[in-house]
Amino acid sequence: MNVFAVPGLPEVRPGDDLAALVEAQADLRDDDVLLVASTVVSKAEGRRADLEDFPAGPRAREIAERLEAISGEEKDPRFAQAVLEESTEIIVEAPFLLTATKFGHVGVNAGIDRSNVGGAGDGEASDDGADLLLLPERPSESAARIRENLDSDPAVVVTDTSGRPFRHGQRGVAIGWAGIPASRDWRGEEDRDGHELEVTVEAVVDELAAAANLVTGEGDGGLPVAVVRDWEFGDHEGSDNLYRDVDGDFVRQALRGWEFARD
Amino acid sequence: MNVFAVPGLPEVRPGDDLAALVEAQADLRDDDVLLVASTVVSKAEGRRADLEDFPAGPRAREIAERLEAISGEEKDPRFAQAVLEESTEIIVEAPFLLTATKFGHVGVNAGIDRSNVGGAGDGEASDDGADLLLLPERPSESAARIRENLDSDPAVVVTDTSGRPFRHGQRGVAIGWAGIPASRDWRGEEDRDGHELEVTVEAVVDELAAAANLVTGEGDGGLPVAVVRDWEFGDHEGSDNLYRDVDGDFVRQALRGWEFARD
Repeated sequence: MNVFAVPGLPEVRPGDDLAALVEAQADLRDDDVLLVASTVVSKAEGRRADLEDFPAGPRAREIAERLEAISGEEKDPRFAQAVLEESTEIIVEAPFLLTATKFGHVGVNAGIDRSNVGGAGDGEASDDGADLLLLPERPSESAARIRENLDSDPAVVVTDTSGRPFRHGQRGVAIGWAGIPASRDWRGEEDRDGHELEVTVEAVVDELAAAANLVTGEGDGGLPVAVVRDWEFGDHEGSDNLYRDVDGDFVRQALRGWEFARD
Repeated sequence: MNVFAVPGLPEVRPGDDLAALVEAQADLRDDDVLLVASTVVSKAEGRRADLEDFPAGPRAREIAERLEAISGEEKDPRFAQAVLEESTEIIVEAPFLLTATKFGHVGVNAGIDRSNVGGAGDGEASDDGADLLLLPERPSESAARIRENLDSDPAVVVTDTSGRPFRHGQRGVAIGWAGIPASRDWRGEEDRDGHELEVTVEAVVDELAAAANLVTGEGDGGLPVAVVRDWEFGDHEGSDNLYRDVDGDFVRQALRGWEFARD
């Protein structure tokens, strides 16, 4: 399996054809997996926004005040409002906002990015007035659209980076995918000694996103597109059921009933 | 970056020199990352055990009875006892046992494996009487030991697979590492537009483990060793602080106070 970043992509603007931009820089093959960072998908889909677009309601003001008290840092209630509007559920309000996005992903601040927007950021006026970058509305549809516009026929995965419980640090995750199931299913298969496997469903799109993140990097040298080549999904059942629903997610249930308290 | 599984490793026995077994099958380079599944590390370190080694105390019996009531399946209290003895904290007792291992990893059943043990499994007598495979006691020390015994000088990562909140499926994770920091730190670096990055610490050992899991597979065709070649950690600060402590882990705090209840 070979993993490489695609260099030379220009700054992406609303309405840009990402498929064309990528194919101008890389010869893709039908059995490749193309991994595209959500930032450039969002930019192409016009998902930049301005804090002024989110006049804060009472709940957002309350959340921002609480976060400000906890952190000692100024918090803009309009940012909390943006998070509320991008979410179907606020799972944790403090010490940070953890929410479920409309498409099922659970992340801090609904995945809204305040760096790398391509404007001045941090609430200051930028060349196009945008200082927030929202996640794509339906990332699997974004992946399908990119895939349709390609001349070749690779799988496409839209990636993000995300923290997690129990372990420090971020790692790449998938938030949308097309042309590949999210997971492969080893159920019913046996180990070397003839016992049925305990570990059964492998979230391959997340593993592909993690592999891509190793080569794309962050920061001013960061590249938003990578390719996984010469990897096979193999002869397995697949599933697109990546996001747990609340009933099957004990951590989400526990967090719902939890209240942050300072020592 | 190139990722490939190492074929041809024999069934690993207690006392085996994993470094020698791997080098007999692969020409490693100094800048490779060698990824070794915890199963074979455990086997080499004699971490097979038998249920009979864990006579169940009152708490284990209570836990097993509760899990039996919830699942409708027979639960061996000796297995619960084994999990207790491998753990420093039982974070969740039901509907499954989620614990913190002595070396900091949080996982279901303290990572104890009942498949792929190389015996008969499932509580039946096997050729060496073992039906459990415990995780290595100190996986980063295991990684360091493998590394010392190699003729070449790659980084070594001991891997496992693990589920996670919010998302279905398992993915590869690191539980031990040597010759490489667990994470690389992008703090202080700026994005393309000159803003300081929000995403700052990348858990590279977990991403390497995820990449390896894509090529090693599970089951009777599964291979326990992979190599990542032509990948660079780069010029970054590193950190070995991978496991959150309880104070900084809100999910762990929330789970401590949570009680599973059936609808």
